[in-house]
Amino acid sequence: MTVVESSTHFWPRRAGDFISQGRLWDRHMAMARLGATVKGGVDRQALTATDIEARLLLLDWARAAGLRPSIDAIGNMFFRRDGRSPDAAPVMTGSHIDTEPTGGRFDGIFGVLAGLEALLAIEAAGIITQRPIELTVWTNEEGCRFEPGCMGSAAYCQPDRLPEFLSVCDAAGLSVGDELKVLQQRLPALESHPLALVPSTFVEAHIEQGPVLEANATTIGVVTGIQGLRRYAVTINGEAAHGGTTPRAVRKDALLAAVDIIHALRRLAEDPEDLIRFTVGRFAISPNSPSVVPSQVTFTVDFRHGDGDLLVRLGENLAATCRRLAGGCTVSIAEVSIVPPTRFPDSMQQVIRRAAERHRLAHMALPSGAGHDARNLARLAPTGMIFIPCLKGISHNEAESVEPGDLAAGTRVLAEVLVELADS
Amino acid sequence: MTVVESSTHFWPRRAGDFISQGRLWDRHMAMARLGATVKGGVDRQALTATDIEARLLLLDWARAAGLRPSIDAIGNMFFRRDGRSPDAAPVMTGSHIDTEPTGGRFDGIFGVLAGLEALLAIEAAGIITQRPIELTVWTNEEGCRFEPGCMGSAAYCQPDRLPEFLSVCDAAGLSVGDELKVLQQRLPALESHPLALVPSTFVEAHIEQGPVLEANATTIGVVTGIQGLRRYAVTINGEAAHGGTTPRAVRKDALLAAVDIIHALRRLAEDPEDLIRFTVGRFAISPNSPSVVPSQVTFTVDFRHGDGDLLVRLGENLAATCRRLAGGCTVSIAEVSIVPPTRFPDSMQQVIRRAAERHRLAHMALPSGAGHDARNLARLAPTGMIFIPCLKGISHNEAESVEPGDLAAGTRVLAEVLVELADS
Repeated sequence: MTVVESSTHFWPRRAGDFISQGRLWDRHMAMARLGATVKGGVDRQALTATDIEARLLLLDWARAAGLRPSIDAIGNMFFRRDGRSPDAAPVMTGSHIDTEPTGGRFDGIFGVLAGLEALLAIEAAGIITQRPIELTVWTNEEGCRFEPGCMGSAAYCQPDRLPEFLSVCDAAGLSVGDELKVLQQRLPALESHPLALVPSTFVEAHIEQGPVLEANATTIGVVTGIQGLRRYAVTINGEAAHGGTTPRAVRKDALLAAVDIIHALRRLAEDPEDLIRFTVGRFAISPNSPSVVPSQVTFTVDFRHGDGDLLVRLGENLAATCRRLAGGCTVSIAEVSIVPPTRFPDSMQQVIRRAAERHRLAHMALPSGAGHDARNLARLAPTGMIFIPCLKGISHNEAESVEPGDLAAGTRVLAEVLVELADS
Repeated sequence: MTVVESSTHFWPRRAGDFISQGRLWDRHMAMARLGATVKGGVDRQALTATDIEARLLLLDWARAAGLRPSIDAIGNMFFRRDGRSPDAAPVMTGSHIDTEPTGGRFDGIFGVLAGLEALLAIEAAGIITQRPIELTVWTNEEGCRFEPGCMGSAAYCQPDRLPEFLSVCDAAGLSVGDELKVLQQRLPALESHPLALVPSTFVEAHIEQGPVLEANATTIGVVTGIQGLRRYAVTINGEAAHGGTTPRAVRKDALLAAVDIIHALRRLAEDPEDLIRFTVGRFAISPNSPSVVPSQVTFTVDFRHGDGDLLVRLGENLAATCRRLAGGCTVSIAEVSIVPPTRFPDSMQQVIRRAAERHRLAHMALPSGAGHDARNLARLAPTGMIFIPCLKGISHNEAESVEPGDLAAGTRVLAEVLVELADS
């Protein structure tokens, strides 16, 4: 027996070998038409008509695949493939369908379609797992229409936050609760899924949204964790004055104070390993007239790193730098978000690594710079993430682009991982 | 005879002694009601209904004072007091009635009301001058409704620019030419004044709009000239990227490039004499999202100084600094305005200094940081300017404030200056 199984004619039936790259690509392109922008991107914000259309399309595909759909109180959707032990905690995999207003064709939806394709491949391979496997779609990951992001997975993992989330309104005054009622009306009646039902493990496939895999010519990223974030809003108050008449000595120039502060912060964040992420992404000046000394500047500072203590020190240095370089101006600093780093268990990383090796795919360990629903699920269960490269690391951008072969490779790894996790 | 004239009982009748501080203040307050803002400032933009109201009020006062009104093709108004030689070139004095949208109660109107009060004082002193004296109101000095500023005095000094100015439109699409027709309909029929009629001299009284006189506890500023200006629009193009995922090494961060450039420019402009005026007053960033590396920054650079060669060097250094510090970004620089410095003749400065000394008023020489109609008149005739202090140098601001005693002091000096110039 052993001799026969190890021969070249009788490979074990590996789920990853039953992935259809063509179907996977076609389904990405079909989804990309829902909310397509003229520049080739996607605008499919959470709980809009196009988000609902995409959910209906996914529901069709999932039903055709024999999966059992259900929905929870925040609109997260679940598609279940049963295992031999129907009462065992399921392995979960999934991501999100919603996009930024000028988003790309792969961010989020890849993790959903990879999960569906993986389940189809497992079925085609004739594999019956011990545990059930549930494909999930988390509501409102992006947070651009309704703040905060990762709302669906947060409500799933911390159900006490549900009432708070339901009352969040978008710019037009529509609440999450109201829009969930519209979703319910548009969808067929679905089984109800409880919040906080603890999975055995969770794994999310996603595009990297950064340039590291591409730069290293590596197909599979084994994500070590999600770095922590500290975001600040800095306000500098100076004094408006006539730019032609006011001597330098008596100016209280809020812009020059901001320039000095950011110039110093940049040096602070220049670690030799290039792991600190330092971004001043929002910046506004008042009164914003060419001949008037600026009276006020507001800007954001976004620090990210995998080491939570380092983030605390960066925040302390921010305050000290602002005090030191304010000149004649006053500075106030508001801490907008603090998210501690998340570390994914080594055991999960090993499962992903093994799957990549089985398919002879180059892999490397790397942290996630961006936040993901996996950050919330990691509170409930052992969690891992599989990254694939995207062109030049460009994401949250209509120009986002991914190779069909990389979509398939990531999906192949996901399928193997799901089988291993569902049998352990 | 000599003995009697020099005695304390028989002073020569000095025009400056016949200034009414109370009337001068009341008239400022009457004008401030036309276009008054809730915050205590004035919104009386050029050729609006309130500008016309103010012109009508001035016309009443000038006629009551026996002055002969006329108007030219760009709406500049003239109020003439004859001298012994009716055909001699007149001495001119005046300023503007229009304000910024959130302007103050003294910018411009002081020079007009000081001229009127000076002519009343000269009359009250029983002085008959050799040359005629003309009080002028220059149309659209501020340039906030119709660009460029100092339009009326520019058309007066360079009549070939008139057609260009008449076709300038405001944001609502109304042209200067159309609004001048409205002005003509609202005013009584007035004698026509030619453009470019060359005065013997021109003198303009104005608030300093800067803090120098106040800081030096000095009432009268003898203006040495108007500094030159070079204004640039700088555009930095980088590349938008995810702030959480993109390593520092591959970022093309337009904001950090702008910060480096402005940080260096500031050092460049730090002259020990504190005479270079360096202002980055307008600054915009795109896409302006906290977690996105900025792809584009645009900002203005406004350099002013009395030395035209220094301004040229500053401009060259700007270009070199931008090239040197652009990092991975590209920088383009557009030269928005070049105005060479204007120097007022020593002879005019001496006349003003003598008048201040006759009234025992502290005086000092200083350049004007702001542009004024006097810059245009200096092309036609020897020109001077008299400055008085304003509170903390605040101007182009509804909080603009001037002491009644300083208004009177400046007017006293103006009256003496006009008499001396009209008799020379």
